[in-house]
Amino acid sequence: MKVRILVSLKDSVLDPQGQTVKNTLHTLGYNSIKDVRQGKVFELELEGISKKEAEKIIPEISDKVLANPVIEKFSWQIIEKG
Amino acid sequence: MKVRILVSLKDSVLDPQGQTVKNTLHTLGYNSIKDVRQGKVFELELEGISKKEAEKIIPEISDKVLANPVIEKFSWQIIEKG
Repeated sequence: MKVRILVSLKDSVLDPQGQTVKNTLHTLGYNSIKDVRQGKVFELELEGISKKEAEKIIPEISDKVLANPVIEKFSWQIIEKG
Repeated sequence: MKVRILVSLKDSVLDPQGQTVKNTLHTLGYNSIKDVRQGKVFELELEGISKKEAEKIIPEISDKVLANPVIEKFSWQIIEKG
């Protein structure tokens, strides 16, 4: 089973990295870009567990290891079954 | 319009960050995780352009600014119309 987890800063948290990317894009003439937020993506390959077990451990892992719940939020989806 | 761009290392490129995350998860007892790949996600807010124009500039931006095409690949999708 393959799972994709997206981790990004909460909307209320400033994103200086995204801001820098936005400024760079404006400098290059891409003025239709109004906002950029940058985050992390993790693709996990899991073996030997059911969908139900995955639904239990993925939020656990995200909360404990992948994201900092104080300033970040996460979402996840199964991108490959099996 | 809101667009999500995923940038990740090409499959042939080693991912030491992902490897470290995998090792940490194993240490914590999550042994069903067979592989972890880490990448970046960008969420762009675009204004005043058509879907067709977006389809032109998003790959351009990704190739020039967001990804390093030598070692990285990208994919993108529109996540909010308008």
